[in-house]
Amino acid sequence: MIKAGIVGGTGYTGVELLRLLAKHPDVRLQAITSRSEVGTRVSEMFPSLRGRVDIEFVAPSAGALSGCDVVFFATPNGIAMKEAKALLDAGIRVIDLAADFRIRDVGVWEKWYGMQHACPELLEDAVYGLPEVNREKIAKANLVANPGCYPTAVQLGFLPLVEAGLVDTDHLIADAKSGVSGAGKKAETGFLFSEAADNFKAYGVAGHRHLPEIRQGLSIAAKQPVGLTFVPHLTPLIRGIHATLYAQLTGDADLQQLYESRYANECFVDVMPSGSHPETRSVRGGNVCRIAVHRPQDSGTVVVLSVIDNLVKGAAGQAVQNMNIMFGLQEASGIDIVPLLP
Amino acid sequence: MIKAGIVGGTGYTGVELLRLLAKHPDVRLQAITSRSEVGTRVSEMFPSLRGRVDIEFVAPSAGALSGCDVVFFATPNGIAMKEAKALLDAGIRVIDLAADFRIRDVGVWEKWYGMQHACPELLEDAVYGLPEVNREKIAKANLVANPGCYPTAVQLGFLPLVEAGLVDTDHLIADAKSGVSGAGKKAETGFLFSEAADNFKAYGVAGHRHLPEIRQGLSIAAKQPVGLTFVPHLTPLIRGIHATLYAQLTGDADLQQLYESRYANECFVDVMPSGSHPETRSVRGGNVCRIAVHRPQDSGTVVVLSVIDNLVKGAAGQAVQNMNIMFGLQEASGIDIVPLLP
Amino acid sequence: MIKAGIVGGTGYTGVELLRLLAKHPDVRLQAITSRSEVGTRVSEMFPSLRGRVDIEFVAPSAGALSGCDVVFFATPNGIAMKEAKALLDAGIRVIDLAADFRIRDVGVWEKWYGMQHACPELLEDAVYGLPEVNREKIAKANLVANPGCYPTAVQLGFLPLVEAGLVDTDHLIADAKSGVSGAGKKAETGFLFSEAADNFKAYGVAGHRHLPEIRQGLSIAAKQPVGLTFVPHLTPLIRGIHATLYAQLTGDADLQQLYESRYANECFVDVMPSGSHPETRSVRGGNVCRIAVHRPQDSGTVVVLSVIDNLVKGAAGQAVQNMNIMFGLQEASGIDIVPLLP
Amino acid sequence: MIKAGIVGGTGYTGVELLRLLAKHPDVRLQAITSRSEVGTRVSEMFPSLRGRVDIEFVAPSAGALSGCDVVFFATPNGIAMKEAKALLDAGIRVIDLAADFRIRDVGVWEKWYGMQHACPELLEDAVYGLPEVNREKIAKANLVANPGCYPTAVQLGFLPLVEAGLVDTDHLIADAKSGVSGAGKKAETGFLFSEAADNFKAYGVAGHRHLPEIRQGLSIAAKQPVGLTFVPHLTPLIRGIHATLYAQLTGDADLQQLYESRYANECFVDVMPSGSHPETRSVRGGNVCRIAVHRPQDSGTVVVLSVIDNLVKGAAGQAVQNMNIMFGLQEASGIDIVPLLP
Repeated sequence: MIKAGIVGGTGYTGVELLRLLAKHPDVRLQAITSRSEVGTRVSEMFPSLRGRVDIEFVAPSAGALSGCDVVFFATPNGIAMKEAKALLDAGIRVIDLAADFRIRDVGVWEKWYGMQHACPELLEDAVYGLPEVNREKIAKANLVANPGCYPTAVQLGFLPLVEAGLVDTDHLIADAKSGVSGAGKKAETGFLFSEAADNFKAYGVAGHRHLPEIRQGLSIAAKQPVGLTFVPHLTPLIRGIHATLYAQLTGDADLQQLYESRYANECFVDVMPSGSHPETRSVRGGNVCRIAVHRPQDSGTVVVLSVIDNLVKGAAGQAVQNMNIMFGLQEASGIDIVPLLP
Repeated sequence: MIKAGIVGGTGYTGVELLRLLAKHPDVRLQAITSRSEVGTRVSEMFPSLRGRVDIEFVAPSAGALSGCDVVFFATPNGIAMKEAKALLDAGIRVIDLAADFRIRDVGVWEKWYGMQHACPELLEDAVYGLPEVNREKIAKANLVANPGCYPTAVQLGFLPLVEAGLVDTDHLIADAKSGVSGAGKKAETGFLFSEAADNFKAYGVAGHRHLPEIRQGLSIAAKQPVGLTFVPHLTPLIRGIHATLYAQLTGDADLQQLYESRYANECFVDVMPSGSHPETRSVRGGNVCRIAVHRPQDSGTVVVLSVIDNLVKGAAGQAVQNMNIMFGLQEASGIDIVPLLP
Repeated sequence: MIKAGIVGGTGYTGVELLRLLAKHPDVRLQAITSRSEVGTRVSEMFPSLRGRVDIEFVAPSAGALSGCDVVFFATPNGIAMKEAKALLDAGIRVIDLAADFRIRDVGVWEKWYGMQHACPELLEDAVYGLPEVNREKIAKANLVANPGCYPTAVQLGFLPLVEAGLVDTDHLIADAKSGVSGAGKKAETGFLFSEAADNFKAYGVAGHRHLPEIRQGLSIAAKQPVGLTFVPHLTPLIRGIHATLYAQLTGDADLQQLYESRYANECFVDVMPSGSHPETRSVRGGNVCRIAVHRPQDSGTVVVLSVIDNLVKGAAGQAVQNMNIMFGLQEASGIDIVPLLP
Repeated sequence: MIKAGIVGGTGYTGVELLRLLAKHPDVRLQAITSRSEVGTRVSEMFPSLRGRVDIEFVAPSAGALSGCDVVFFATPNGIAMKEAKALLDAGIRVIDLAADFRIRDVGVWEKWYGMQHACPELLEDAVYGLPEVNREKIAKANLVANPGCYPTAVQLGFLPLVEAGLVDTDHLIADAKSGVSGAGKKAETGFLFSEAADNFKAYGVAGHRHLPEIRQGLSIAAKQPVGLTFVPHLTPLIRGIHATLYAQLTGDADLQQLYESRYANECFVDVMPSGSHPETRSVRGGNVCRIAVHRPQDSGTVVVLSVIDNLVKGAAGQAVQNMNIMFGLQEASGIDIVPLLP
């Protein structure tokens, strides 16, 4: 049994990790830390876990996580970069669900995240945890940077086209829509029910932190810098991301075949039949990305539709997937969940 | 492995049964029938099941279900009463998720359901499938009438008080609120998103079919006829029932203790701590009923709050629980699911 | 033209007052104050008002509201009681949308609101602004306590029965459901979209501040103290209150006739035909209370359904109605709005 | 007073027309026809209109609409083309809210709408009712083709760029999101609450009927055929369209200035300040299109955000605006409504 710890865990990625780990056949949840909730039972904060998770939040002191084989950071940005080193030095493997280790260029990171990086020396060893790209590296990694939610949906949607060199990578467009849980559990006016329900809006058009992360991943795939316009939107659903991707074709190919081949061996990417329109609810609660590829009116514009549950394949589920790979477990262990529909 | 068949299964209780059975460790899904969808792959109708359920709907002909150990009817009212007999005669056990066998008094049934009962002779053998009341009978039953969603939430909420003779059973009040999936997947104007979203209303105040079912169960518990006012409401959530129950106390007791004792051995009834307000989302996707009991301002009025997921503990989950009991499996097998929150 | 001022006004009752006053033919909006938003254009905070309201928030200094004929307090509880006196002394009439002057018994108020009342000497002159009860007094009032949202829906629903002495007033039950805007625009975790959407729960079962307000109003109508169990619930809609009221009949009467007579001359109370189920959306954005009265199964229990828009008839609309009465305007002036459906 | 009639009117554009006309100071609603609802009171079907609209649906016979000055068709596609001629011949002006007269090329229309056009000879006289483009022609028109909801939002968003010749019109992209009321009030499974709530999906990627309509309008503005990729999505809100538009700049200009100039004299187009993100709720219930223009990261890609209420500026409100223009009334008469927020 893998002994797992969680740092943070009072937010939505935290409760989702707990949901998954509570039923993971190969994992024992050892400890969960929270500065603000010491002594609170996890199941008191999240009644959905009553009878499933019987531990309390403990203080993030030195010893709390000793004895763990792996520690997940379900913290705001800027925490893991301060605390990961000590854990790694103690032989504990680390999976960061925040953004601290996602961007290889520390200057870019510091510009977009507005703080100084506390531990740039770890960036080289950190592996970007998108299994469909980095599975072998993840297996050997001690520190995994779990991808952002938008970057997971957008990269998985664009990768086959970009890797195959079939599109103009100077003018990629990603029009992405996210459910409100992507904003986390912070109490902010803009995410109140009465503000976000029955409402739709774009945000961050001038620039969003996931832009450099997506650009980094697609540039590696393209073997050259890509140009990307990324427009995120807030849509009134709890869970779910729908990315609508646009690119100009520069070559010819059977796009359906291209996608099916690329993901033939991926258990968590589902290429839907030609003509499909994936729905976010078809992945609600599940660790899967469903993709459909279109070429409307046989024009030169390809349209890719890509959906995930932002808290599962876009966060906690992918983190568990990475853990499974790191420890040589069945990749689907504990995350082989049928989505909840309706 | 239990071999299971489903009759119907194109509606919400159907897809929920499929979600649960697809991962049940002791069950193999043998066949699913549908008159209208013969040849359609189940996963085409319900994309959430892609990669999980690989069978097609077949015609409800004689042989389709032969070889099954158990058949679930996820059909409209009035189907199972015509088809159950043949299956039972063939030694197949039957669980009806519709209302055909729930009411023991055929006259009452015919009045409320507006049709003649096709098979009243089975009513005597049918067992009302509320495990918290009838576990022993269910274990031996060949035909189980799975309770309605409202009746499950209301009866589990009232039972401790009524069994203990602590309340005036002439004036029970059940103010119940249901998510829209309780209305099923039929295309009716009133359940369109644009009608039901951002809206709240009562319905069926003059009389709802679940009234006689609840009254029957509570009368058995009270050992005398009970008087019940039952007002159902439609609330804009997909899944969930919240029953708010009111009764006048006629005796004195530690109500918290009463409820905890009554359900001490029930794995799917969770009596919450004193002062709690159970939320429907705390049971979303899970097979549990959470209950809290209040006595506001120390008055003579007791208020019980009872929540379930109408599609799980209120339908498919309870059906699987009944199957587990009937076949001597672990009662929680396949339905030991952590609810999805948020 | 009446010159109106608003104190507060950054919350939902504030923006709703602005929506109504912006189009009121007899009112000129003179000033709006806010401690935190001095200098912000109103239409910057509320883009729905772009092109309609061209003023800025000003500091709540002495002179800001001089010259007004009437001032609305759209503030949290505890502000109006400190500031109303000075305005009244300056000959300005005051309408408080908060709770400061709603309860006549200062001890009761202080117990439920948890603070000392700053101006109990005004309580005697304050008029409870429910026009259907106090129209004549409102016309002459200088200080009007605008009713709470739940109290408006519950009192209008119960009044005909209680005034006629037809029900047991020791055991009234009000099961009320509110949209989330009733909680205001404060950033609190519990009212986030991801917490409140697709969820239903009771709250404050042990005691809610609107209980003594409702009890006061119904006791006056009954000419004796009433016993009331009041259970509020949070339901995922933005606007709307649905009160389901239960009482035991002690006398006999044509209930439909009773309600129609009681409200025959009320332009903002709509008694629906017998058998109706009023929907919250049928009053969305309008200043009307729709009521239906039922007696299910001819039992001794009467069930009343009462719906309002909590921000209109439950707050800002009723405040404008009170202003119209106070200044001898047409009672419907500026609030004669057709609800928005769908 | 203009005497107005409505053909159809049992759907959402119908009830919205009724809401607007009920309060229009210059209009008297003379008759409303419906084949299926003859004799039903309008306010029985739409309780929001109780006390506001006192007429019944009448049969669509010859005389029903005689005496009207203007008739609105709030019917499915294919009705107005059969009935408009007789009305026009009788000197009654006609505004069709459906698509029958929107496309000038009858072949294109017949291909996309899948039926033969019953009255192509009227197409030449029909004026496309987008006031911001065709105000003068509308003033003189006897037959106005009211634009579709998507086409209104997309054209108003693109027009300044296209008219100014500043973008590559071969590769325009319109990623549009609509609330569910856009699908009308037909009972279809896909638009049930339990299907459309908490869900997001694209649809019609291969081709949507609004594509040729948008292309026609933009081609006229560009004075050459344009290439457009149009992807509509269904988002869980009742009302609202959010169009996110992408184009490659071919020239240089102050885009903010360009938009503000273009719409300087338009009372129903609101160009928001630079950097804005218009929300659909800021136009809920109002007849306004709010637009913001962005150029993220100073790239060559311009991003335009355009929001409308699909039932108002996208349907009934624009129809009334057209009527006002046709009859020389104040253009804002009866539609000068403050949007409902929250």
